[in-house]
Amino acid sequence: MKEFNSPEAWGDFIKASTTIPEGFRFATAALEFLPKERPAGKPYPMRLSLIVADQPTTAFAGVFTKNAFPGAPVLLNRELMQSDQVQAVLINNKISNVGSPTGLPDARALATEAGRLLGIKGGHVMAASTGIIGWSLPVPDMVRAMPGLVQAAGKSGPLDIARAIMTTDSYPKAFCVKAGSGHVFGIAKGAGMIEPNMATMLVFLMTDLDQPRAELQASLGRVVEATFNCISVDSDQSTSDMAILLSSQKKPRVPAAEFEKALFQVCEHLATHVVRNGEGTAHVMRVTVSGLGDDRLCREAAKAIVNSPLVKTAVYGNDPNVGRLMAALGDFMGNQGHRLDASALSVSLCAHTVFDRGVFQLSAEGEVALSDALKLARQDPTVTGYPQHDRFVDIEFKSQSGAGSARVLGSDLGYEYVKENADYRS
Amino acid sequence: MKEFNSPEAWGDFIKASTTIPEGFRFATAALEFLPKERPAGKPYPMRLSLIVADQPTTAFAGVFTKNAFPGAPVLLNRELMQSDQVQAVLINNKISNVGSPTGLPDARALATEAGRLLGIKGGHVMAASTGIIGWSLPVPDMVRAMPGLVQAAGKSGPLDIARAIMTTDSYPKAFCVKAGSGHVFGIAKGAGMIEPNMATMLVFLMTDLDQPRAELQASLGRVVEATFNCISVDSDQSTSDMAILLSSQKKPRVPAAEFEKALFQVCEHLATHVVRNGEGTAHVMRVTVSGLGDDRLCREAAKAIVNSPLVKTAVYGNDPNVGRLMAALGDFMGNQGHRLDASALSVSLCAHTVFDRGVFQLSAEGEVALSDALKLARQDPTVTGYPQHDRFVDIEFKSQSGAGSARVLGSDLGYEYVKENADYRS
Repeated sequence: MKEFNSPEAWGDFIKASTTIPEGFRFATAALEFLPKERPAGKPYPMRLSLIVADQPTTAFAGVFTKNAFPGAPVLLNRELMQSDQVQAVLINNKISNVGSPTGLPDARALATEAGRLLGIKGGHVMAASTGIIGWSLPVPDMVRAMPGLVQAAGKSGPLDIARAIMTTDSYPKAFCVKAGSGHVFGIAKGAGMIEPNMATMLVFLMTDLDQPRAELQASLGRVVEATFNCISVDSDQSTSDMAILLSSQKKPRVPAAEFEKALFQVCEHLATHVVRNGEGTAHVMRVTVSGLGDDRLCREAAKAIVNSPLVKTAVYGNDPNVGRLMAALGDFMGNQGHRLDASALSVSLCAHTVFDRGVFQLSAEGEVALSDALKLARQDPTVTGYPQHDRFVDIEFKSQSGAGSARVLGSDLGYEYVKENADYRS
Repeated sequence: MKEFNSPEAWGDFIKASTTIPEGFRFATAALEFLPKERPAGKPYPMRLSLIVADQPTTAFAGVFTKNAFPGAPVLLNRELMQSDQVQAVLINNKISNVGSPTGLPDARALATEAGRLLGIKGGHVMAASTGIIGWSLPVPDMVRAMPGLVQAAGKSGPLDIARAIMTTDSYPKAFCVKAGSGHVFGIAKGAGMIEPNMATMLVFLMTDLDQPRAELQASLGRVVEATFNCISVDSDQSTSDMAILLSSQKKPRVPAAEFEKALFQVCEHLATHVVRNGEGTAHVMRVTVSGLGDDRLCREAAKAIVNSPLVKTAVYGNDPNVGRLMAALGDFMGNQGHRLDASALSVSLCAHTVFDRGVFQLSAEGEVALSDALKLARQDPTVTGYPQHDRFVDIEFKSQSGAGSARVLGSDLGYEYVKENADYRS
């Protein structure tokens, strides 16, 4: 992956990577509303976005949050996954439409209205909402904005739509990969509240390759498991996460493996940048665990380490407090009822061995080198608009007691995260 | 419980609650050392503390961390739990003696030296260390300080020893309860890295009541489960936690239930103040979950809620972002493979119903009332030395799908937590 060290380089990169598959149009529109759940004040801004395929498609797939209190858009789309065709996705930010007394009817009414204006069946429009949980959508205000939105279809480019779905994201996330004579393209929204298992993340994937529906669903499931479900910003999994994949069926099918590889590349890029772009993230941690039981145990252990507040705050402070790495692993293993054979374990931080066969490998010189490596991997969380580099804080646990392995990306925890989240709704 | 709203009131309270059981003496001593694991700089201060019973006792008990990477003092004390008698506990702060190449021999050498100077067997001295993980104890420096420590035995009071074991704690935690003709007394250290299951917490409990050893162990296990294992500051469980209970056997035995009640009162007080005194804590959350499966499931759910970074930061900001409460519960239940019947659930925050039978109960007036309630429950995390009040942020989940219930205490997450933890070792 190339380094992004200036807004210009990032702009060039984004332009080059946003060729899009044939057969899709985008639109965005803005509106304002007064939430009834808050004391009277200034209006809140909302953005609507629309992804519409030229024709209804029979080739689509979706993966949804495992949260047991899912939002209305998740419920609606799960229904639509049972239908034969879909053609569009209607997206709004600011309110996630979760736990509202009128949640599902609201989502359905808005999808139907968009379908009516687009001249397609209401049952062919999927919904996606992100934002505050508990508030109700301002349906009349949204309906009023809908004709303008539909008329704008085709006037927005891929970067516009990637920008329009942002909430606290600081830069748009879009990526395109060529496969056969077509493309696989994706955009993602997601900054805070990201945990493995599809957490407050909206991912919209498009292709013109004519892969069959069953293949799309199987590939999407595997790829999401290996990418979006291996990242964690703050260990909270949202009520509203989804990854939707639509094919316009305009280009000849490619072999399944070739398609899945392209889909993986797109999702891996998006997932990495969802973490890099996490609320207040100064360091991106890449934790690899191998040889500690099976893949699943390795992944759970890696997640426990990237989610440890004490590991996260130490990394934020460029403090190579490596004792906390072992404490976090020991905490996870002990609580899960597993033994940990420390004498068969080695741990490295930023490619320096810090623990080997039962004992820490610490020295005054090593401490300085590690602190320098952490500083080098730091990005300034107050700089927004583009990724500053692609460096990671690599943390590696190697054992010999199993054949599994896993890699999880996560973010550190600092002042900017608290600032972003202590009064998110203001 | 009374309100502590001034240093004077707290001072009076502490004095009144530190009557101690007969048959114990305390001592503390200070020393300085240069850690070999850090670049040369100014010396680090360390405090040694000693709890010594007048005679060896056959009545003692201990509960230790479940962390699979335990420190040398935990290993040593687990051995001593197999012996017939103990008489003293040697405690140090600053270095936790975990993962050191010479960890267990160091702990043993120090205990033996303390025993030699006290005129008691080395095998009768337990060890407890708290502080940085990975570094080695400065044994020669500690041995040099030991004669002064032993000579001071009996010159320190209960508050001195409660203060001496503090690390990032901002005020000493000590509590005494009368039972029969004797007392149950305890001190605790613990501020950051506190999770249920005995996390970086050192608890020393003393009684003069002549309860048999088996009863002490059984009572301690049950009481720790209901108190220290129901609190969470930052979800990390330390390598070094322990609760040790010694009886001087000076006073007649009381009925087992009466003893356990006194022990519970002491531990509940200490556990509450370990949370109230957590690193950078501005609000203490008290989460009650009932009717959601069995006790264990209710407790795990309550822990998931108090450990959610998004819940913690919202509470810190006095922001009644109640959607995050349901999102955190849904996340936990979904990930554990449980269904959540939202239509049978009601949720309250600070005694206001915010969710009932499937939908949020939100209004502009309610929002103001909730925000005011959160502000009232706030303590200033930069004020140290005494607890400012005893108010909680009460969060209650009530369902009808099971008979279980649980209550968990936790802390919010704000700037002061990050400050405390981003460069803890400096």
